[in-house]
Amino acid sequence: MKDAHSIGPGQIIRRKDDGSLEYLRDELTIEEPLEIRIGSKTLATTMRTPGHDDELAAGFLISEAIVRDRGQIAKISETVDNVVVVELARGVRVKLNTAQRFGTISSSCGLCGKTSIDAIRQSFPAIESANVRIDIDTLLSLPEKLRKAQSDFARTGGIHAAGIFDVNGKLKIAREDIGRHNAVDKAIGYALLAGSLPLDRHLLVVSGRASFEIVQKALAAGIPIVAAVSAPSTLAVDFARENNQTLIGFLRPPSFNIYSHIERVILERQST
Amino acid sequence: MKDAHSIGPGQIIRRKDDGSLEYLRDELTIEEPLEIRIGSKTLATTMRTPGHDDELAAGFLISEAIVRDRGQIAKISETVDNVVVVELARGVRVKLNTAQRFGTISSSCGLCGKTSIDAIRQSFPAIESANVRIDIDTLLSLPEKLRKAQSDFARTGGIHAAGIFDVNGKLKIAREDIGRHNAVDKAIGYALLAGSLPLDRHLLVVSGRASFEIVQKALAAGIPIVAAVSAPSTLAVDFARENNQTLIGFLRPPSFNIYSHIERVILERQST
Repeated sequence: MKDAHSIGPGQIIRRKDDGSLEYLRDELTIEEPLEIRIGSKTLATTMRTPGHDDELAAGFLISEAIVRDRGQIAKISETVDNVVVVELARGVRVKLNTAQRFGTISSSCGLCGKTSIDAIRQSFPAIESANVRIDIDTLLSLPEKLRKAQSDFARTGGIHAAGIFDVNGKLKIAREDIGRHNAVDKAIGYALLAGSLPLDRHLLVVSGRASFEIVQKALAAGIPIVAAVSAPSTLAVDFARENNQTLIGFLRPPSFNIYSHIERVILERQST
Repeated sequence: MKDAHSIGPGQIIRRKDDGSLEYLRDELTIEEPLEIRIGSKTLATTMRTPGHDDELAAGFLISEAIVRDRGQIAKISETVDNVVVVELARGVRVKLNTAQRFGTISSSCGLCGKTSIDAIRQSFPAIESANVRIDIDTLLSLPEKLRKAQSDFARTGGIHAAGIFDVNGKLKIAREDIGRHNAVDKAIGYALLAGSLPLDRHLLVVSGRASFEIVQKALAAGIPIVAAVSAPSTLAVDFARENNQTLIGFLRPPSFNIYSHIERVILERQST
């Protein structure tokens, strides 16, 4: 017998827990390419969730050490046909050789040229301040605050979130994207465009794992503390230790792991 | 008061549910770069979990349409200093222009050149056979089978899995990696090196989300059914619909969603 079911445009079929079937409208995370150009030259194209493309471009430029501050960006265009164009300030020069293009792509997405890793380790100074500290109750409050700031996750389950908080637990910005690196770039890009870098009294909180690239993007923005809801990788931990960043993983209240530079976490309750 | 705690090499500190602290050995997913070369030329460098690097390289070459079958690969080296070298068979020519390098990186990791998407859509023929079908009980058994084949996930929570099953639910191969695209490349690469392509009576099951790249890699290997434990993206659904692939998401027994080509899923129980 041939099944009578077929799936129309914009539809999905769900098998429910009781075994029955229902038709639903598909509410999926949108994934589309964004081409980031500097002037007339293509820098990279990323698969992203549309929205806040100017911030994504700005965050990408900071993460890749192509610009160092807000003043080096003259203008970022509206997105037209999935292309966003950055105009750099007069006198800002960018060398886009093959190696750098290669490296550019890499660190944003988990794929990278070896030279790129080496280059990036040299590109950003380690965090200097050890005076920034967060108390444990504030830290434990952050995942729920990030979830509340998310719109899309609960509906589709296919989107990552990145939030920047100050050490008092106040949310500065939360951004979402199908790519977790993009979510971080959007949040950092927002801060860059707002003239808020370096974020040296802030935390980056991510809804998923902490790979090397995530920790490195935080360093690019001067962020001393990174907290992830899931696991970090070995390279992320090594990188955080080397660069004087506090790295927290499996932040699932009331428990969490600390992988580096514990001195920024106030473990004793204030009342004791 | 300064905290007395400090974290040594290979150590982490865990805050437990009761608020007490304990020192643990860190058991993290290893993340290291792998440079894939064809002869003396670098094709790409990926951040991966070491192991099965030859399969990763082979799967990458198939996914990127650089080779089409086992016979086009003469030899894949052991990994030395995180470099793996592929020697192509005599007479196999590869054009590695800038655009292709760009595209190469992209589709493996979520970042891609627009031209790359277009090129890949043309590179692989759509699935022809509509005769392959899987029954619902077999489908529902796959996530647990994949979990049982995983070694590392439970311990670190930071690793993705990809499994290839036949339509009777028999596991052909399961592979893990910190990058979900790498896990798929390793599984497909295993099949390529075993001379098993096309996998036209098989399913690809992934432990996470199904992005465009995952579905496209399945198409490169001739796989007609893709099932993901988490959400697919819009582009993944569009791609599967266009290429006659069945795409299943949120496969969390006893429920799941079907996004395309439901005719390959036998929804009626055999006994009815």
